[in-house]
Amino acid sequence: MENYRIYLTEEEIPTHYYNLRADMKKKPAPLLNPGTMQPMTAEELKGVFCEELVAQELDNDTRYIEIPEEIRDYYRTYRPSPVVRAYNLEKKLGTPAAIYFKFEGNNTSGSHKLNSAAAQAYYAKKQGLKGITTETGAGQWGTAMSMACAHFGLECKVFMVKGSYEQKPFRREVMRTYGADVVASPSDTTQVGRSLLEQFPGTTGSLGCAISEAVEVAVGTEGYRYVLGSVLNQVLLHQSVIGQEAHTALSKIGVKPDIIIGCTGGGSNLGGLIAPFMGEKLRGEKDYRFIAAEPASCPSLTRGKYLYDFCDTGNVCPLAKMYTLGNKFIPSPIHAGGLRFHGMSTIISELYDQGMMEAVAYEQSEVFEAAEIFARAEGILPAPESSHAIKAAIDTALECKESGEAKTILFGLSGTGYFDLAAYQQFNDGTMTDYIPTDEDLAEAIKCVPPQPAEL
Amino acid sequence: MENYRIYLTEEEIPTHYYNLRADMKKKPAPLLNPGTMQPMTAEELKGVFCEELVAQELDNDTRYIEIPEEIRDYYRTYRPSPVVRAYNLEKKLGTPAAIYFKFEGNNTSGSHKLNSAAAQAYYAKKQGLKGITTETGAGQWGTAMSMACAHFGLECKVFMVKGSYEQKPFRREVMRTYGADVVASPSDTTQVGRSLLEQFPGTTGSLGCAISEAVEVAVGTEGYRYVLGSVLNQVLLHQSVIGQEAHTALSKIGVKPDIIIGCTGGGSNLGGLIAPFMGEKLRGEKDYRFIAAEPASCPSLTRGKYLYDFCDTGNVCPLAKMYTLGNKFIPSPIHAGGLRFHGMSTIISELYDQGMMEAVAYEQSEVFEAAEIFARAEGILPAPESSHAIKAAIDTALECKESGEAKTILFGLSGTGYFDLAAYQQFNDGTMTDYIPTDEDLAEAIKCVPPQPAEL
Repeated sequence: MENYRIYLTEEEIPTHYYNLRADMKKKPAPLLNPGTMQPMTAEELKGVFCEELVAQELDNDTRYIEIPEEIRDYYRTYRPSPVVRAYNLEKKLGTPAAIYFKFEGNNTSGSHKLNSAAAQAYYAKKQGLKGITTETGAGQWGTAMSMACAHFGLECKVFMVKGSYEQKPFRREVMRTYGADVVASPSDTTQVGRSLLEQFPGTTGSLGCAISEAVEVAVGTEGYRYVLGSVLNQVLLHQSVIGQEAHTALSKIGVKPDIIIGCTGGGSNLGGLIAPFMGEKLRGEKDYRFIAAEPASCPSLTRGKYLYDFCDTGNVCPLAKMYTLGNKFIPSPIHAGGLRFHGMSTIISELYDQGMMEAVAYEQSEVFEAAEIFARAEGILPAPESSHAIKAAIDTALECKESGEAKTILFGLSGTGYFDLAAYQQFNDGTMTDYIPTDEDLAEAIKCVPPQPAEL
Repeated sequence: MENYRIYLTEEEIPTHYYNLRADMKKKPAPLLNPGTMQPMTAEELKGVFCEELVAQELDNDTRYIEIPEEIRDYYRTYRPSPVVRAYNLEKKLGTPAAIYFKFEGNNTSGSHKLNSAAAQAYYAKKQGLKGITTETGAGQWGTAMSMACAHFGLECKVFMVKGSYEQKPFRREVMRTYGADVVASPSDTTQVGRSLLEQFPGTTGSLGCAISEAVEVAVGTEGYRYVLGSVLNQVLLHQSVIGQEAHTALSKIGVKPDIIIGCTGGGSNLGGLIAPFMGEKLRGEKDYRFIAAEPASCPSLTRGKYLYDFCDTGNVCPLAKMYTLGNKFIPSPIHAGGLRFHGMSTIISELYDQGMMEAVAYEQSEVFEAAEIFARAEGILPAPESSHAIKAAIDTALECKESGEAKTILFGLSGTGYFDLAAYQQFNDGTMTDYIPTDEDLAEAIKCVPPQPAEL
């Protein structure tokens, strides 16, 4: 029998980020300035993001970008992360399929988010900046940034959606323990926040508003920039360490996956996991089946439109061409499983549009059923987000059982569910439901998408 | 530079539990039947514990006890656990000391408890039992047993102290997700519980009462036995996997620790970590300095008496000879950092009495200061319990800085603090205090210790 866990050595942590865009013949569409409808220039982006990250954002050509030693050194405190053979899950399902998962949850941020946080904090520090601002909803990204800033010696100001700030105080306390300044959003510290509080005194906030506040403070504070945890090209670039490690680990034991599965909200976890495999497919070297698993309550890939849209609900960010439900679309508040973004990374969107990958949408009760099966079999309590991938992996393994095919499945277990127990409680109590938008809902929501540009 | 983390292969997971008692010339004192004041016999213990565990409890002579393949197989889902070189902490402290920690928190139970839970569940299943009962306070042990029972196919009934059940619902939900039946204690399902509820209708329960309920149900239910997560010889035996792995890992890189530090409440984590090193010391092969770190609010080693006492507050358990504060001693309710047991494992107690180890007690605010330093340096958010060991390690490293000695320190990081954020919040808010018992408090508390037996 093989080992359960395939560990690489610290020397095998990737030395370069792999830039999937370099292998895409048709590149992902550029970000547009909503004022001019022209591609955002480096100059325009530098007021918001730090310089090195702007360069990475716009670079569609360099295949490998060296990872600075300082970042690799930080990665060594929690990477390489293991690829695990899910023997107990296979046995429970009675499937001939071999199931592997790449586990990114064994760090205090609880997810893969730390991979990009480390890079973003490092480049900000290297540029001589004093601090960064960001927003966080459930808190995974904010936690990751707090940890990375504590390591690299940067100030970290996190605008946390007020509803989460009050109802989920534990994530907030993790961030504070790492020295971050955590502010409930909307706050009276920004113009955007004050104006919103005046209009809606009792509001519990939104991610859109938190983004706007974070950007306002970053742009208006000497030595500060703004950072974002998903969607952007630079973030998918950093997350390529996930896929590269998985590729190396499986190659070591002579295994080639047939099917690669990831959950997707903004696309950073999925984009990172599939990157080197998708590269092989794009270059015609190998073939893989890719499956993106998303929530039925926020089905941007499976039911959205491929259009230019704002990345935020406040319309302060550039336009991105992506599968979107419309920037005013708010997923059902009873949806607990994360992945609540109205759009999708432009890289993932373009690949999906090219037919390079499939997508599937799940309701949250079936996702938590899969989470429970997995937890009992494999020991790890998965994040609700990651459990979308588990559900897809289980379904695929059961199809193999049906057909008798011994396929090899690799899925991304992007995080743990230790801060999502309120949702598990709903599931355990049998009170979990989900609201799936109707066709009418979606037709209405997509109307807020701005006028589309002429072909560039 | 060495690696940050020293991983063993799965083949290097210990094949045997190491029984430290075999190397103790003066053995730990036997458990006594409080009725007869005679050593508990296997026959007497078999009604409460399963047979193999009774044999392990009473075996002072067999040095190595084989770990069944089924348990090793389960260990492979989360072990071997890494030994980590705390480079960033060393740098922050500016110490010439080398600091290593053995990290047991990378599993969903969040601590080392799973090592013994796996063994106890396996032996119960092997005996053909249907289920087990146990109690849990903060919930780490209950979580570990729930996970192990889910794996080995046993029913698991956990009596959770009502105060925790209501105020810390998240641990409860983890247990339920793994299929455990979690009951708030005192409950109306036992005689002990009903009588207590009648006497004190508003009580939020205690660990002592939860133990009594769990034992009552175990003894009164066909095919059930009771399991306990610390203090007992059998538990320290199982936890020897921690020390054995640490010993193997350090030997691999040619490092011999000078100082070995663990936190201690009941003693299972400390006893497991030090086992093979203490064995070498007892056999006169090598010398080490051992430090037990305990809370100043519950200072059994540093301020208790070495006497026979009940292991529980309800006086239903056997008598154990141990450093104790008196079985009615209740640590200050404002103490948040775990390690709240009034006594101490008989093995640890006997070694301490023989002068084989030192002990030190810390107030919780200084413990959380150490936790914050560690978290920011090493990334991992430590459990408050484990942070007692961190505090001792930092103090020792700073002594080395003072003296200029490049000593090697190994400490046990027994768990993570993801479910202890309410305590971190107190610390972050600056509202954390601690109540240290006065000499008068302790003189009063020790009076409840029963009459001592004549020398056996």
